[in-house]
Amino acid sequence: MRRKGNLFIVSGPSGAGKGTIIKETLKSNDDFKVSVSVTTRMPRNAEVEGVNYFFKTEKEFLEMIAEDKFLEYAKVYDHYYGTPKEAVLEAVERGDSVILEIDFQGAVQVKRNYPEGIFIFILPPSMVELKNRIIGRGSETDETLKKRFLSAFNEISYIEKYDYYIINDVLEDSVYSFKSIIEAEKCRVMADVKEILKMYKEEE
Amino acid sequence: MRRKGNLFIVSGPSGAGKGTIIKETLKSNDDFKVSVSVTTRMPRNAEVEGVNYFFKTEKEFLEMIAEDKFLEYAKVYDHYYGTPKEAVLEAVERGDSVILEIDFQGAVQVKRNYPEGIFIFILPPSMVELKNRIIGRGSETDETLKKRFLSAFNEISYIEKYDYYIINDVLEDSVYSFKSIIEAEKCRVMADVKEILKMYKEEE
Repeated sequence: MRRKGNLFIVSGPSGAGKGTIIKETLKSNDDFKVSVSVTTRMPRNAEVEGVNYFFKTEKEFLEMIAEDKFLEYAKVYDHYYGTPKEAVLEAVERGDSVILEIDFQGAVQVKRNYPEGIFIFILPPSMVELKNRIIGRGSETDETLKKRFLSAFNEISYIEKYDYYIINDVLEDSVYSFKSIIEAEKCRVMADVKEILKMYKEEE
Repeated sequence: MRRKGNLFIVSGPSGAGKGTIIKETLKSNDDFKVSVSVTTRMPRNAEVEGVNYFFKTEKEFLEMIAEDKFLEYAKVYDHYYGTPKEAVLEAVERGDSVILEIDFQGAVQVKRNYPEGIFIFILPPSMVELKNRIIGRGSETDETLKKRFLSAFNEISYIEKYDYYIINDVLEDSVYSFKSIIEAEKCRVMADVKEILKMYKEEE
């Protein structure tokens, strides 16, 4: 039976551990394709077109927006960043799955463009722990620390827009939960019901 | 954070392997409570009241129906069998989970009484394989074989009422899928959103 892939959208305050969970999960899971973003910023050192990013001029990027070619995009300081719709949806259609690690604003845009996406929110075990993790990185002034902390709390209030949440206390448990969500979503009846009935009907 | 348990309803044609998957899953999972059914049939040999069944007279059973005390019930030949609502929902409320292995008619009743239930359908790898498994048991005449086979096919056509499906080809894979569904459902935002927000709010 031919199955489509799934599109997973992962958000959560920085410091919650999204990146680590995703990296660990993908180690033992090879039906995932990486989505390559489009950006208007200049390539750095060893960055390769089509591998790290698709590099575009601002004019080209704005045309892509006008042509509705993004699942989501954002302007960060002076540059645009976006997730190309066609490449991601084609991969999903072929049976590959894709994980997008994006913030709440991006997730809302993806939901509008692809409501079948599976939305996962990663939480720190507590706000105290989040603060410790951010301080632990040692790269923050009091001011930016306060800012990041407020923005983290603000982000958590959007959790109800998501399907699943994982409280990232013990990494191993979080990876187990993440893998379970991926596997469970493969077992969803909704997307496959016609295929299933066809499969058992044909043999009758 | 206090979480409620989940109620899982498992159906599928006989011979698909429901019972084995459930048994294997429960071996390594101890937050499940067994639901004890109510019946009007007589206790056999070593059966113990409240362990194997709750034994009731037909009059008592009919009163329980009238008082809406069942999640589902059915009359099989001369006897009634039912799943008591209160015990199951209390366990779920306390944080335990419960698995009910029941047929489609029962599942429909549970859905009406407890729409938050999680409905899982177990399929044989193919109808040919199902036939082989039923024949393998060696206890069937041609006539009953044909009957069971038709009823299996009929049952599969109700799959769209279920949330998840598992094609039971390799038992180990099916158990992995089943465990994944159980774990993923623990990560559902919907039931816990108020608790989550409270948890992070209180610490602010």
